[in-house]
Amino acid sequence: MTTEQDVRDAARRAKDAAADLAPLARAAKDAALHAMADALIAQTATVLAANTKDLTNGRAAGLTDGLLDRLALDEGRVAAMAQGLRDVAGLPDPVGEVVRGYTLPNGLEVRQVRVPLGVVAIVYEARPNVTVDAAGLCLKSGNAVLLRGSASAYESNTALVAVLAEAAEKAGLPEASVQLVPGTDRESVTHLMRARGLVDVIIPRGGAGLISHVVENSIVPVIETGVGNCHVYVDAGADLDMAERIVLNAKTHRPSVCNAAESLLVHRAVAEEFVPRVVTALRHAGVTVHGDDDVLRLAGGEPMDGPPVLPATDEDWAAEYLSLDLAVAVVDTLDDAVAHIRRWSSGHTEAIVSASQPAIRRFVSRMDSAAVMINASTRFTDGGEFGFGAEIGISTQKLHARGPMGLPELTSTSYLVTGDGHTR
Amino acid sequence: MTTEQDVRDAARRAKDAAADLAPLARAAKDAALHAMADALIAQTATVLAANTKDLTNGRAAGLTDGLLDRLALDEGRVAAMAQGLRDVAGLPDPVGEVVRGYTLPNGLEVRQVRVPLGVVAIVYEARPNVTVDAAGLCLKSGNAVLLRGSASAYESNTALVAVLAEAAEKAGLPEASVQLVPGTDRESVTHLMRARGLVDVIIPRGGAGLISHVVENSIVPVIETGVGNCHVYVDAGADLDMAERIVLNAKTHRPSVCNAAESLLVHRAVAEEFVPRVVTALRHAGVTVHGDDDVLRLAGGEPMDGPPVLPATDEDWAAEYLSLDLAVAVVDTLDDAVAHIRRWSSGHTEAIVSASQPAIRRFVSRMDSAAVMINASTRFTDGGEFGFGAEIGISTQKLHARGPMGLPELTSTSYLVTGDGHTR
Repeated sequence: MTTEQDVRDAARRAKDAAADLAPLARAAKDAALHAMADALIAQTATVLAANTKDLTNGRAAGLTDGLLDRLALDEGRVAAMAQGLRDVAGLPDPVGEVVRGYTLPNGLEVRQVRVPLGVVAIVYEARPNVTVDAAGLCLKSGNAVLLRGSASAYESNTALVAVLAEAAEKAGLPEASVQLVPGTDRESVTHLMRARGLVDVIIPRGGAGLISHVVENSIVPVIETGVGNCHVYVDAGADLDMAERIVLNAKTHRPSVCNAAESLLVHRAVAEEFVPRVVTALRHAGVTVHGDDDVLRLAGGEPMDGPPVLPATDEDWAAEYLSLDLAVAVVDTLDDAVAHIRRWSSGHTEAIVSASQPAIRRFVSRMDSAAVMINASTRFTDGGEFGFGAEIGISTQKLHARGPMGLPELTSTSYLVTGDGHTR
Repeated sequence: MTTEQDVRDAARRAKDAAADLAPLARAAKDAALHAMADALIAQTATVLAANTKDLTNGRAAGLTDGLLDRLALDEGRVAAMAQGLRDVAGLPDPVGEVVRGYTLPNGLEVRQVRVPLGVVAIVYEARPNVTVDAAGLCLKSGNAVLLRGSASAYESNTALVAVLAEAAEKAGLPEASVQLVPGTDRESVTHLMRARGLVDVIIPRGGAGLISHVVENSIVPVIETGVGNCHVYVDAGADLDMAERIVLNAKTHRPSVCNAAESLLVHRAVAEEFVPRVVTALRHAGVTVHGDDDVLRLAGGEPMDGPPVLPATDEDWAAEYLSLDLAVAVVDTLDDAVAHIRRWSSGHTEAIVSASQPAIRRFVSRMDSAAVMINASTRFTDGGEFGFGAEIGISTQKLHARGPMGLPELTSTSYLVTGDGHTR
């Protein structure tokens, strides 16, 4: 069982490292990222050997094929991780950016400047690529990083962190800039969540269960990521060809991710025409539709190959399916759509398809989500799509960061105030 | 005993109000703030009658004169609260500000826009003026507010909130935009801290005990405010007249506030000259000095009227005295000063007095505090001094907001993405 002392010792080393990382110039950090990428390539065989152990253990433990696939590394995947580090090296350094700056009437110069957060802990599930991505983003933004991956990826993560940490240190970064949190048991996370004052933030990445466990139990500040019950609303007078394209893309382009659509709301004025055609198109694409009474009446009877149209319950309105399922309802007004979304949404991304400027303005002003898409697919809520170059996760909370988080979201700010002997 | 249902019902009403507050234009919010100010003036007698009950109860319960003074209202204090609301009405509306905006290569327009947080809860101690200040700031930034004052100010707060809520509603704001949290018992705060999903943030304002209780027990996100163990470091080669002015101002201008200095560190190169003179000046100003061995040797023996020079212990380095006490140490190097501060500081404000640009640059880059003063008093870390026009508190955490918090810090952001049928 992992002891609190083990975790606190690692966190304390990370805090010491953070103090030395913070003042580093961009060139030093970028050189380290390139050295880490080189080391990953050079030591691919070691990493793959460790990964093979995880896969063997995983098969013995009865992991599903899906999980095994997420866990599996090969030369291509290791090379992609290395390239990810080089890409991060190419991004601007957020540290030192002057966010606000002005001179007060008394002559004091005030500058609000971006600084690293300090020690960032990431708690995540199977994919070993998160180990490398998170390490790269945290170091680039001047933070020490504590990585707590899942037990099923333990051998892979241990090998990856050994390679990264050694390369980083050789390149001149402080010792303990990159560390694995000791232990893969539940206590390991519990102690991490209690290490307030040593750890500055915990970012959980994974399923809803992991995220709510961390959110509810951590006294270290948390950034909540990723649960997405995303809606598409098709307004009266919408271009229905556009609406169909957007619905299909939002649902079927990659159903397993948080920015996929899970619910469709159709204004009654276009329901008669739009519901049958979109349900048919969805079924052709392999989607099971969960419809309200109107949807069942308008499109429930269509005999065709493909998944059925099922009656929707409150569980469907609440569901983040992450699969080829879509809840569909007809609403009488835009305000009814707003009320439905405010009741059921997880606050990730909502989309409106409409040609009406007043309708769009009203919808947008009443949403309470990280992103609102106007005549665009929900799938665009993504750090890469937004041009951030990299993403540590998508925040669905309102404090600190909301929506896709890039490098600036891994920083805090500090006020620098310069005078020449000013007193009050 | 306050039930969870009572608190959740209030929070749910606040959440409904928040949905209608968010889209309000600035003019509507400002008109309501002026109406609230008018109502406070018109109903001063009612407010003072309620305050008299609190004072009577407080005297019976044996409150100290200091607490009674903080609790006491008079016509002037009520007028000042009303003026505070008018001042907030005069500030720019943070809601709708475009924080970032650009067009992606595919033509999608991305706008990151400030939006209200939603429901803001303030948990605070005796001063009734916080009731009015917090309500004004929250409403101006489009948030519904839940106020949880102390039991000792219950009658005053109830009267104030009745006046504010009625005036706000008459002026067209949603019902329940301003509410008192039911109950003044411990359960009342406990239920508030569990109302995740209804309450968006809790801001505790008060002593260290209240703040750490909320930080450690809330599953609603918290913004930590105000504990200040602030340091002044006097560097080798510093202008010692300037240093003395800054130390005296930082310590004695208003010792009971969080941005007062609590520790002084003096570089050995100037200690021989500076320590005796600054200790003498401090003692003349009524300050008890808690010195390390060097300080005791250099200034301990001075016979004079005034408080003594006492030996410092680790408790002194850690102390937020909030009184006319100052811990003083001699350090061998700037890096020793940095190490001392990183070990003992609460991360509020540190000051360096130095004429050396390289020394200042090194010091600043190694601090981990909300504010760093360069040749200026720690007392300038303040929303009013920074020109924010108003302040809801001073954050000493790193997430979301750090340092003095004005209106923008009471907002989140949302991404608005506009296309013409964009899909991935």
